[in-house]
Amino acid sequence: MTFVSRTPTLINFSVTKPIVECTTRLKTRVLSVEDIRTIAAHVGLDVLMDEMIARLTAAFSQFDPAQTVVPVRTGFNYEQPHVGLVEWMPLLQKHRQIVVKAVGYHPCNPHVHELPTVLSTLSAYDPTSGHLTALMDGTFLTALRTGAASAIASQHLAHPHSKTLGLIGVGAQAVTQLHALSRCFEIEQVLIFDRDVEVADSFAARVASLQLKGVQIRQVSVAEIVAKADILCTETSVEVEAGPVFADAEMKPWLHVNAVGADFPGKVEVPLSLLERSFVCPDFLAQAVAEGECQQLASRDATADAIGDAIGPELFEVVKQPDRYRPQQQKLSVFDSTGFALEDQVAMNMMLDYAKALEVGSWVSLESAATDVKNPYSFVVSG
Amino acid sequence: MTFVSRTPTLINFSVTKPIVECTTRLKTRVLSVEDIRTIAAHVGLDVLMDEMIARLTAAFSQFDPAQTVVPVRTGFNYEQPHVGLVEWMPLLQKHRQIVVKAVGYHPCNPHVHELPTVLSTLSAYDPTSGHLTALMDGTFLTALRTGAASAIASQHLAHPHSKTLGLIGVGAQAVTQLHALSRCFEIEQVLIFDRDVEVADSFAARVASLQLKGVQIRQVSVAEIVAKADILCTETSVEVEAGPVFADAEMKPWLHVNAVGADFPGKVEVPLSLLERSFVCPDFLAQAVAEGECQQLASRDATADAIGDAIGPELFEVVKQPDRYRPQQQKLSVFDSTGFALEDQVAMNMMLDYAKALEVGSWVSLESAATDVKNPYSFVVSG
Repeated sequence: MTFVSRTPTLINFSVTKPIVECTTRLKTRVLSVEDIRTIAAHVGLDVLMDEMIARLTAAFSQFDPAQTVVPVRTGFNYEQPHVGLVEWMPLLQKHRQIVVKAVGYHPCNPHVHELPTVLSTLSAYDPTSGHLTALMDGTFLTALRTGAASAIASQHLAHPHSKTLGLIGVGAQAVTQLHALSRCFEIEQVLIFDRDVEVADSFAARVASLQLKGVQIRQVSVAEIVAKADILCTETSVEVEAGPVFADAEMKPWLHVNAVGADFPGKVEVPLSLLERSFVCPDFLAQAVAEGECQQLASRDATADAIGDAIGPELFEVVKQPDRYRPQQQKLSVFDSTGFALEDQVAMNMMLDYAKALEVGSWVSLESAATDVKNPYSFVVSG
Repeated sequence: MTFVSRTPTLINFSVTKPIVECTTRLKTRVLSVEDIRTIAAHVGLDVLMDEMIARLTAAFSQFDPAQTVVPVRTGFNYEQPHVGLVEWMPLLQKHRQIVVKAVGYHPCNPHVHELPTVLSTLSAYDPTSGHLTALMDGTFLTALRTGAASAIASQHLAHPHSKTLGLIGVGAQAVTQLHALSRCFEIEQVLIFDRDVEVADSFAARVASLQLKGVQIRQVSVAEIVAKADILCTETSVEVEAGPVFADAEMKPWLHVNAVGADFPGKVEVPLSLLERSFVCPDFLAQAVAEGECQQLASRDATADAIGDAIGPELFEVVKQPDRYRPQQQKLSVFDSTGFALEDQVAMNMMLDYAKALEVGSWVSLESAATDVKNPYSFVVSG
């Protein structure tokens, strides 16, 4: 395969520059689906992914939990009329920005509404005023940043000469997993499995537009994937209590797993015995022990100290100290990816920077500012 | 004063009709500030308030806590760079609608940014798909619904021939308190006090556009307000631990208080001794005991049973059984108003109905729907 660039073109690259703008005009920058399509088409998916990986790496290395507060997501989940949930993933970067991702997850959407399973929007607020500064789609960016997070984890924890990528579950998330990893590793072989034969059969066509030269995609058994992969991504929709999705069998001594699918209490993909002898790195510990692979380690070990021993540092800590964790590249490791609001913030700000540079998007007045702040009717009467 | 209509013109009046629409097109109905101004100007503030009161009364009388889930609000609050908070008030009406109000409260906004203290937006989601169906300003509607809630509480708990209204604190909230109460009672006299003389002096001018014929507005002492009022509204920005804002002194035996200001732990407006001998009706018990007047009763009584004895039913229960609670109109009563997401849902749906009837607002594509739901890039590539 051709050598892939690791030095993307960065537009307005700065993770520390103030995001707040336009407060006095009290308008909200809205990026429609068409605006995001325009940006993605203009920039190109490869550059967009490279930029996402570079920005997210920088954000992890600068991440300070004392300055950026990330509560565990909350929301509504229900069984009727269809199984579903709508949740909010908030983040406060003190003095600078609040980002909230609203995520709807409704597995019946394709059948019932001809809509995607995940629908999502991202909102940004100015914490100096409460002003809603920006609003945009979150679905596309979630796929992008989830791929980027796995790529970063793999850059730090997988064997640097990884050539064989295994994918168990090749739905929507697998597309950006492959794309992101192909930007950071010289992947020669992709071994795939999906219990839905149609999904497995369509995968090669779905990633054809990525033009991954020299990459061979083959459907094989789960056991063969586990035996041959240097890097393994699990992104299944395995049912609660039905996991893991592969057996703990023969594997390379440096196998790195990106476990992407677990995102709900009781849903897991990785065998506990493998977790127990691997270096386990969650994206966001508090959430991973609630709904990620780390559930298995947390429920086994009763005390917080014991959990701390069984679960390694969060990804941002690994990124901050690459030399310290480099020996893990030769050993078993698992990245427990449940989704971290910092990733959404970075993705959103990247799109806002592109929107600004490309003059894409529109400004909408969404918040009423009464001309007399002591009279809520003044904006109607004197407007 | 002229007799006020109690039978407003209702446009598309129905609190049970499905709200969900336009899911398949996956567009979001956005009402800009200009759209809300257009609706308010076209409908008129009196009809808008009458409609809000009528719809909210109907919503309270139909409210079923098993069908409509209202969690206590959560969010971020901080001291730097200015004191402020951004919170989310969510509501799930099962099968039908999720409404989330984002509220920013930044008391320094007028000085620092020339912006209102409160900035707010309302979002509605379809719980069958997760689709964001609508988005609009929440600031104006919050003022409107807060006035309407006090009017409904007063219709049920205040003396039906109330003629003297007292207002302690006459900032923004006082405008809609007076407006809403003037739609339900033949108010002859409004006695006002504000510790900020400029605010007190400007009140008459601020409510002039309401054209309240025959209503006399007079600045008097707090003691005189308490002594003479049939209905008393407190809507101050008293500091935490600095309340109450009036003394428990001579008052009419049927005084009804709408306590609107308390919305933060430690912030209270009503003397505990008055609460103890009054019928206390919160809008939303779980929140009232955390940040309303009910804090005082909850902290005094250690057990949940004792709290239940000291605090009366929530407003929706009173509205459901008007005859049962009518005797309270002759006695002391306090409505503890901290803000209830049901009120926001009703206000939002009212505006959506007006927007539809008047063909106001715009449709925006905010959520990406990949043409191939298994390929997050398909909307870019094939779009």
